This record gives sequence, C-alpha cells and structure tokens, in this order.
Amino acid sequence: MEREELRTRLIEKIDNLNKPKGSMGRLEELALQIGLIQGTLSPSLRHPCHLLLGADHGIEREGVSISPREVTWQQMRNFSRGGGGVNMFCRQHGFDLTLVDVGVDHDLSDCPAILNRKIAPHGTRNFLYESAMSETEAEKCLALGRELVDNCRQKGCNILCIGEMGIGNTSPSSLWMSELLNIPLAQCVGAGAGLGSEGIRHKLHVLSLCQQRVGHTTDTRVLMREYGGFEMVTAVGAMLRAAEQRMVVLVDGFIMTACALMASRIDPNFLATAVFCHQGDEAGHSLMLGGMGVRGLLQLGLRLGEGTGALCAYPIVESAVRMINEMNNFDNAKITKYF
Amino acid sequence: MEREELRTRLIEKIDNLNKPKGSMGRLEELALQIGLIQGTLSPSLRHPCHLLLGADHGIEREGVSISPREVTWQQMRNFSRGGGGVNMFCRQHGFDLTLVDVGVDHDLSDCPAILNRKIAPHGTRNFLYESAMSETEAEKCLALGRELVDNCRQKGCNILCIGEMGIGNTSPSSLWMSELLNIPLAQCVGAGAGLGSEGIRHKLHVLSLCQQRVGHTTDTRVLMREYGGFEMVTAVGAMLRAAEQRMVVLVDGFIMTACALMASRIDPNFLATAVFCHQGDEAGHSLMLGGMGVRGLLQLGLRLGEGTGALCAYPIVESAVRMINEMNNFDNAKITKYF
Repeated sequence: MEREELRTRLIEKIDNLNKPKGSMGRLEELALQIGLIQGTLSPSLRHPCHLLLGADHGIEREGVSISPREVTWQQMRNFSRGGGGVNMFCRQHGFDLTLVDVGVDHDLSDCPAILNRKIAPHGTRNFLYESAMSETEAEKCLALGRELVDNCRQKGCNILCIGEMGIGNTSPSSLWMSELLNIPLAQCVGAGAGLGSEGIRHKLHVLSLCQQRVGHTTDTRVLMREYGGFEMVTAVGAMLRAAEQRMVVLVDGFIMTACALMASRIDPNFLATAVFCHQGDEAGHSLMLGGMGVRGLLQLGLRLGEGTGALCAYPIVESAVRMINEMNNFDNAKITKYF
Repeated sequence: MEREELRTRLIEKIDNLNKPKGSMGRLEELALQIGLIQGTLSPSLRHPCHLLLGADHGIEREGVSISPREVTWQQMRNFSRGGGGVNMFCRQHGFDLTLVDVGVDHDLSDCPAILNRKIAPHGTRNFLYESAMSETEAEKCLALGRELVDNCRQKGCNILCIGEMGIGNTSPSSLWMSELLNIPLAQCVGAGAGLGSEGIRHKLHVLSLCQQRVGHTTDTRVLMREYGGFEMVTAVGAMLRAAEQRMVVLVDGFIMTACALMASRIDPNFLATAVFCHQGDEAGHSLMLGGMGVRGLLQLGLRLGEGTGALCAYPIVESAVRMINEMNNFDNAKITKYF
C-alpha cells in the first residue's frame, strides 16, 4: 500500500471506531503515527527495549552541575542492582533494560550487568578548552548506537526507549539546541538537576565561552565532536538506526530531545518515528520541542532523566495501539453513528 | 501515627529516594497523597475496580446533545460485549469492570453482564419542565453508589474508578458547576461530544431556562434532585463511600469532575482521596478543576467519557506507588546526596 493510501485508510479506521470523531485526542494521533511507522492498519508493540547509556563529561569540572561527577558511576552501579528510577519503570512496563557504560569515569567491571563499551575511560574532554571527543570517537559512538539497536531488533523489539546517565549532560544539550535552532544560549540553559539562579548564571557564562571557542555552526559532525557527550552521540546513532528499522522511538526529556533534534538534522525522516513522551519544566525544553513542531505527551514535572519520562508514557502508547485494534467500530457495535 | 507526623515522614522518605529532590514531579505528589489516604509509608494498590454507570436524561429531548438517546443503550450493550473504550483500558490495566444500568431508557435484561439497578425505567424527567428526579430517587441513587463501592471493597479493592454513559449528561454537569462555583452558565457550557457553535448556543439557551425555573442555589440536595442524572448522583454516593473507606478515587473528565465537586460539597474530606486524572478540552473543565484548587494529571484531549481518561492515568498512579516502595534511597544506594 502507498503511504498516502495507508494514511487515508488509517484515518478512516480510526474515525469509524465507536466514539465521537476525534474524542480519543492524542491517542488517535499516536495510532495513526504508529500505523504509518509500521506500514499497517493493525500495529503492534513487541518486546520493548530500554537502552540506558552512561558517560561522564569533561565540562563537569567547570561546576556547571549541582551534582558531582561520581554520581554517574554510583547511579550506574545502583541501576545494575535494580534500585533506580529506570529499573522500577522497566519492571512495571516489561522493558528489557540494557545498561551500557560508554565512558563513565570509573571502573565498573565488577558489575556484570553493565556492558563495558567505554569510548574513553574517563569520559569526554573539557570542551571549554578543547573538543569533547575526536572524529574517530564520534564515529565509534554512532556505530555503537546502531549496533545496540540491532541487538534489540534481533530480540524482536519494535519499540525502543533510550535513557541517559551523565552528570553535566544538560550543558552539551543546551549547546546543541542553541546552535541547531539558532536560539540564544540564555533561553537554552536551565537548572538541570537543581541549580539555583547563581548556578544558572555561572553555567550560562561557561557555556558562552565554549560557544565562543567553537564558533557558531549547524554542522552536526562539528557539534557532536566539540560538545559530545559519548552517551548523547551514541543515542543519536541508536535513533537513526531505529528509524531505518521502522521502530517506534520513545524520546525522554531535555537531553534525549536534544539528541532527537540532532538525529532529525542528520536524517529528517527520523521525526516520523519519534514519540516525544514528556514535556518537562527545564527552561528551553518546550522551546526545543516547539522548534521541531512537536509536543510532549505527558507533563508530569519529571526531571530525573534515565529515560523515566519516556517509560511513564509507554502505557499511553499501548492504549493507542489497543484502541485501533480492539475498539469496536460503529458497524460491528450496531451503534447509531452520531456525527 | 498522627496525620501530620505521617505527612512529615512521607516527605522525608520521598526526599531521600536516590534522585534530585522534587525531580519526580507529580509522582511525588501522588505518592504523598496515597500514603496519606492509606495511612502508611508503604502504600499499595489492590484489585482496582471500575464502575460504569449508565442512564438516560430527559433533557436530551431538548436537542442539547449531538448524539441521540439510543446511543446510551447501544453503547451499554457494546460494553457488555467488550467492544468499548472502557473495556480495552480495563483489560490493559487489570480493572474489574462492573456495568450498571441505573436508568437507561431501554430493556437491557438480555445482557447478563449488565447489573439491572434502574432507578426509573426511562431515565430522568426533562428538567426544563420539572425536577429530574424525586427526593426518594436521589436517596436511592446515593445508597446504590454506597452499595456498589462496598461490593468492590469486599473484593479487596482499594482504588476505584468511576465512568458514565448517558447521552446529555454534560448538561446537568454544567448546571451543577455553575451553581456550586457561582460561575455564569456561558463559561460552563461546551461542545460535549461534538456540538457546533449553533448547537452550543441552543444548549446554553435551554440550560438558562432551566436555571431560571429552579432558581440559583448551592443546596446539594436541590441540585441533585432538580438536574440529576441517576448515574451522576449514584457516582456521588460512590465517591462519598469510597472516601469514608479510604480508597483512592480516580476522577475522569467533565462529568465525573462535576460529581467530585458535588461530593466535595457534601463531604469536604472527599477531595483528599480524589486523583483528578485528565484535564480535557471541554470548555469549563479547567475552570472547574481550578475552582477546586486541583489540576488534572494528563492532558490527552480525550472526551469520550466512560472513565477512559481516568483509566489511562492508572499506570502513572502505579508508578508513583512503585517509586515510594521500590526506588532505593541514598543510603542504601551508596550515592553522594547532591542537594
């Protein structure tokens, strides 16, 4: 079936379910989107997978985050024992969780649950002074992301969620956003995990100096190499591969939205496969979503990261798929069509 | 434990989970609320029940709804066969669904899945000309609501969802809202299932005449008797009983919010047990929630009724309960507390 014919038939099917037209709101939009991604009138969700990517950031040394760098490895270890936010939501919604160390500044080899795929042993370099990573390291990240998605795909997965753990990673996210959407940095910088107004001023000052060092650019290779981080570029690679494989991609909060923005600049087709799951309170998140012409599904004031906002939205996505498959239509239900 | 001591200890417990303070947003509010309802630091959700109450409305004869009255019984029959919106979300989230005919204008005795508890065989009377129901009928509804909740309670239920099916029931809801919150009717009347602007003008005109007939009042007994409907007053009885039994009550859209408003005027303690699950686009719904000082959890543009907005929010409530029970705290997780 041609894509436009499929769209027409999906809309017909949704409109003929036994409900006032449009009365299932965003569930109807989701059902249409997932039908189009999967190329079918009867979409399904299979073997949901969550990739949790952890890495450290050289820019953390400049005091841009309220949390110290060791929280990255402590949390990764905590996840490996099942005690984190990401773990409980994966359990709740039946996600297959893969923890990947792509450059955490700590030896985690005593945690067998964490895949050791370090791009560099101590995380990215401090991009106030130098490129966060080399071209080669950026390529490795993109390839790793693709490989991780292929592994999920082999298990039968057709819906992917990606989360991150990396103290300091709102900083590269703000820089990507500012450059790719041409928005002044001040509107892209927020509190992260909980900075006060003095902390935000300092963060903005530091990031402005970084932006001066690199110079304005929308070149995706330059932005990934200069600002990083390893977990973010790996996420971009994963998103691009998932789109190629026609998988549904659940996009989490500020950092993952920045990765989705990057992915959409490398492959404009990516956006069609992305469900933006949560619209947070971080300054700039709404602005970034708006810049891509999309809206978040939930607004729960979450700002934990780890992919938790995306995981929380999964049952809503599942509801949309149930709606188009299980809800009776007017003919079968013998109901007067009332519109 | 005293309530204030419990509150303090719940907040301490939530703040010490391994996440930046406040970073789980509304899940933290929900965990606190449910801990307070159940009087425990470790709340749990057991045997979720959904009551679907169906009834017809005399005011439907005045053309205040886009849908004809027979849709009420047709949908009730459809629900009894498992093909409605309410059915699929009950299946998805493991709700025990009870269908109750409290005054549908049709003989549904051939549907064994529907409990026959008709207050009157043809629904309420037309409140443009006379009271929707007698005092005795209103009392019967309140008692029925209490009985239905006791039945759920006996099955081990501690979380209750209530939905409605009743063509025309946005009209009594708008009138309850207008009187109880002292808001001009024009701000309380919306499109319902899909009226156009001419239809809304007509509906507003009809309801203004009804308001003139009855006269302004905030007397809950008068408002229930004069405007009805049977399913709404039954829902009020159910909500009041659930609050007495310290059950969590999931409140759906415009109509169930009007019932929650009514319940809160009869027993101000009711609000503490209510989770307002969905904030719809119906004119006046946000206004009514604001009038009670509450916000809806989801904004998905749903306007189907049947309790579907509340059912969709259930996994979010479950996430909040998992958070407070399953998430590690800073001490156990050996993580630097970073705030």
